[in-house]
Amino acid sequence: MKNIVLASTSTLFGENYLAYLKPVIQELFEGIDEIIFVPFARPGGISHDEYTAKAAGAFKEYGIGVKGLHTFSNPAEAIQYAKGFFTGGGNTFLLVKQLHELNLMQPLKKAVENGTPYMGASAGSNIGGMNMKTTNDMPIVYPPDFSTMGLVPFNLNPHYLDPNPELKHNGETRETRIKEFHTQNNIPVVGLREGNWIRVKGTIITTEGSCDTRIFEQGKEAYELPAGTVLSF
Amino acid sequence: MKNIVLASTSTLFGENYLAYLKPVIQELFEGIDEIIFVPFARPGGISHDEYTAKAAGAFKEYGIGVKGLHTFSNPAEAIQYAKGFFTGGGNTFLLVKQLHELNLMQPLKKAVENGTPYMGASAGSNIGGMNMKTTNDMPIVYPPDFSTMGLVPFNLNPHYLDPNPELKHNGETRETRIKEFHTQNNIPVVGLREGNWIRVKGTIITTEGSCDTRIFEQGKEAYELPAGTVLSF
Repeated sequence: MKNIVLASTSTLFGENYLAYLKPVIQELFEGIDEIIFVPFARPGGISHDEYTAKAAGAFKEYGIGVKGLHTFSNPAEAIQYAKGFFTGGGNTFLLVKQLHELNLMQPLKKAVENGTPYMGASAGSNIGGMNMKTTNDMPIVYPPDFSTMGLVPFNLNPHYLDPNPELKHNGETRETRIKEFHTQNNIPVVGLREGNWIRVKGTIITTEGSCDTRIFEQGKEAYELPAGTVLSF
Repeated sequence: MKNIVLASTSTLFGENYLAYLKPVIQELFEGIDEIIFVPFARPGGISHDEYTAKAAGAFKEYGIGVKGLHTFSNPAEAIQYAKGFFTGGGNTFLLVKQLHELNLMQPLKKAVENGTPYMGASAGSNIGGMNMKTTNDMPIVYPPDFSTMGLVPFNLNPHYLDPNPELKHNGETRETRIKEFHTQNNIPVVGLREGNWIRVKGTIITTEGSCDTRIFEQGKEAYELPAGTVLSF
């Protein structure tokens, strides 16, 4: 049974790393004493070791050990036998490039589809969608492919940000960008405001968190769903 | 002699399309009665014809006719004989994908290096840089290559936006993203605030416009240059 959390962000403004997800983590990883951390998104360019240490620090209070995926001599095998996964945020292009180049995207997808609990934050949530074409990140490296795990039948837009009517700036709003995506693609996009996440239990997918979730479908006006709504496209 | 303008944006807040660039356009395209418009970035998904009509409307007051690059049966030949170019903004991934797939990136580069005047705005400026890895756009399509024309020996970040200290949001700032680019690449990045542009006349490259220009180099603190500064890296 799929058991997945795809969160908009790791950290709410003014809070500690992963603090707002405490009850979510406790439920998702109940009875698990060790998970694999996927550090490839490298926020701010920090090293895989540094990033893994940060995650390990946050999971200590749950009695859960954290091993970085980069530390295994056979990472595909490690994924197969893992008890749980957390993929941290950062740059989605870096993350996807590394997973494809190491041939780890499919093993990870398979393990999660077979029931190994998975949590993603930001870039780590993007790779739960069909592809990474709705990331907000800068394309600092060229991945061999934009496809991702497709754990859910839609794309995510983490850190979804409503337009700021005060802003005297002509860069595109997030909504404009997602509409441009829909001129080229027919995949629904779930705009996850900070504090929100998607919960998958088996075949049931729900919107969760402190805000409404904004949904974009090709050829429709965007609309809002309250927390606890079952998603089906 | 290279004769190039790479502008941050086509339109300043509350102004008409290309209005603030009037003196720049008059100088760049002096004595020219027709230019080719590259409409492939398709802002908001508008058609090539619609976008070309918009550009033609803006160039009418200068007595300059505008033909869309998409209307030529042999666009590479049309580029070779063009009197000038304007590439509009929109989605850089769409623009670069189309230019590569139609094998037009190199002919355009060659014509501009041979002295045909070129103006870009936003996405149209990104393709003047070494590659498109510092665009702000969403990767809504997968280009076969991120490389661009390299008319200047650096990358551009159009619509450069300073961090907003009021924003209670944990998405990355523009500066954070450019620093992440520098963990993977050693190409200087010119952050063009709205209202600014880069002017190239032969081998001389200057910063221009109403704001300071923010420069990012690998391993250095970002710094500001006033309008009129000659750029050399």
